[in-house]
This record gives sequence, C-alpha cells and structure tokens, in this order.
Amino acid sequence: MDIRPATPADADAIWHILESVLRAGETYALDRDLSRDDAVAFWLGGDRQSFVAIAHGMVVGTYYLRANQAGGGAHIANCGYATLAEARGRGVARAMAVHSFAEARARGFRAMQFNFVVSSNVPAVRLWHALGFETVGRVPEAFDHPERGLVDALILYRRL
Amino acid sequence: MDIRPATPADADAIWHILESVLRAGETYALDRDLSRDDAVAFWLGGDRQSFVAIAHGMVVGTYYLRANQAGGGAHIANCGYATLAEARGRGVARAMAVHSFAEARARGFRAMQFNFVVSSNVPAVRLWHALGFETVGRVPEAFDHPERGLVDALILYRRL
Repeated sequence: MDIRPATPADADAIWHILESVLRAGETYALDRDLSRDDAVAFWLGGDRQSFVAIAHGMVVGTYYLRANQAGGGAHIANCGYATLAEARGRGVARAMAVHSFAEARARGFRAMQFNFVVSSNVPAVRLWHALGFETVGRVPEAFDHPERGLVDALILYRRL
Repeated sequence: MDIRPATPADADAIWHILESVLRAGETYALDRDLSRDDAVAFWLGGDRQSFVAIAHGMVVGTYYLRANQAGGGAHIANCGYATLAEARGRGVARAMAVHSFAEARARGFRAMQFNFVVSSNVPAVRLWHALGFETVGRVPEAFDHPERGLVDALILYRRL
C-alpha cells in the first residue's frame, strides 16, 4: 500500500469513500446529507493536510491531519480516517494510522487526540487501543446512532 | 445585568474583552496574536450565536452558543464565555452561563459540553462544577500555559 498527499485530482475518489461513510451516519458527527462539494471541502480544506492510501492503483482510504487546537493547544494533532467500504478489514486504517503518526511527528506534534470516537464503532475503538491510544474521556449519549439511538462518544489520546 | 443577542455594533466592545483574554493566552486555545477581525469573525461568525452582557450601559461579558458537533452529535451545545477584565469576580460569567443554559434548552439542545477547559483556570473549573458540570475527560498536557508550561485540559459536560 502506498500512502501519499492527496491532490485535487483525488476529489472524486475521496468523495466515493466519504459518501458511504456519511450516508451511513454511524461513525462521524457530520451531516448525513452533506453534499459532495461540502464534504470534499471539509476533508481537503481549511487547515487540513490530506492523504490517500493506494492499493492496486485504487484509492482505498483517506485521512486528514491537522492541529487539534490553536494557540497553546497547537502541539496536539488530530486526524480523521475513512476506508473504502470494499477494502475494510484489510489493514488500510492501521496503515494510515501508522503513517499519520510519522507525519504528525515530522510536523512537530507531540501527541494525537481524537475528539469524537463513537463508542459503538467497536472495530475503530479496538484498533486505536491496539495502536496505543488511551481513552481519556467519555461523553454520555453524545451521538445519535441511526439504529442504536444515543451512544457515548470517546476521547482518545496517544503520545507521539 | 441584561443579556441580549450581540449585533455587529458590539464588535468593538467584544474585541476589547477578547483582546486581553487572547493576549494573556492562559485560558483559550486560540492564537495569542489573533487579529481583531479574525477574533470578531470567530466569535460572531460561522454557526455561532453570540450574546453580550450589559451592566451600567457597558458590555461586561460575551458568550457564544453553537452545536458542538454536526449530524448525530448536534444535540449537544457548546459555549465560550469571556468577561471584561475589570468586571471579573462579580458574577458575570455565572449570569451568562445560566442564560446560555436557557438559550440552549430553547433551541432543543439536550446537554452542553466544553471541549477544552484549561485545568489551571481554577475559577472557571470551580464555577462549572458549581453549575452542575461533570469532568468527563482529561487530556494530559494539552495546553501550553505561558507561565506554567504544559497543563491538562478538561472536558466538561452537563445535561440541560
């Protein structure tokens, strides 16, 4: 698997991944009906640096990296990851995570924080714990899951 | 004390409050050298609804209210508060907080979350606990305090 910075030419492939993640509404606290343009602007824009994971010539995953806060909180990174539905369970997220730790360290970040990991997203929680993240917070009933109803959101943290 | 929605005509008074908060760099994870225009755009813009507290005809405090997350997380509110330096210790923050709970409830929010309360900001932590907030998370060394160095940030939560 090759992981490289995303370019505007990747927008369609990124949207293809994000669309199913967003429409499912089970893992990200983003509008389920977010438009293609708004989703791509969110993922690639602002202060985010975005990457794509390529396997067999196809974009199978994407992630962004940014500072989680400004000012006195700018030494902690934040990332968001999404994997192509057809490519799940094959280590894409893990490979992107390991890549993101190196990218974050290279930019001088000292830790990484995830602000909103939906507690019912068991594969994600298991992966983050396996990769050294600690649960440092739990917000009660913070996410309205389309099937399970209100579930907690976790805050995860890992030194880099 | 009267608390009412902020208008563009309040921008100078809001900036006067924010400037000393930002320049001190002790309580908000925002750039200490944020410009007036960027600070006012942050406080009044985007999806924020902003309010001012008036005492003796003067703006002595300001706060904003917004959804803390989108999509499945949009039922939890988030607020930021700032009090004029000369008016601190007189219940301005408490009055704004109580006002914000009612405003948030009126908009259908079910809880309120603060994502980044600097742990060394003891008066704030004490006030939030007194007003019913629980500490639901603690991020180690998340804030680089200009005098104390790295201190933890707290995540606070309160049902509405």
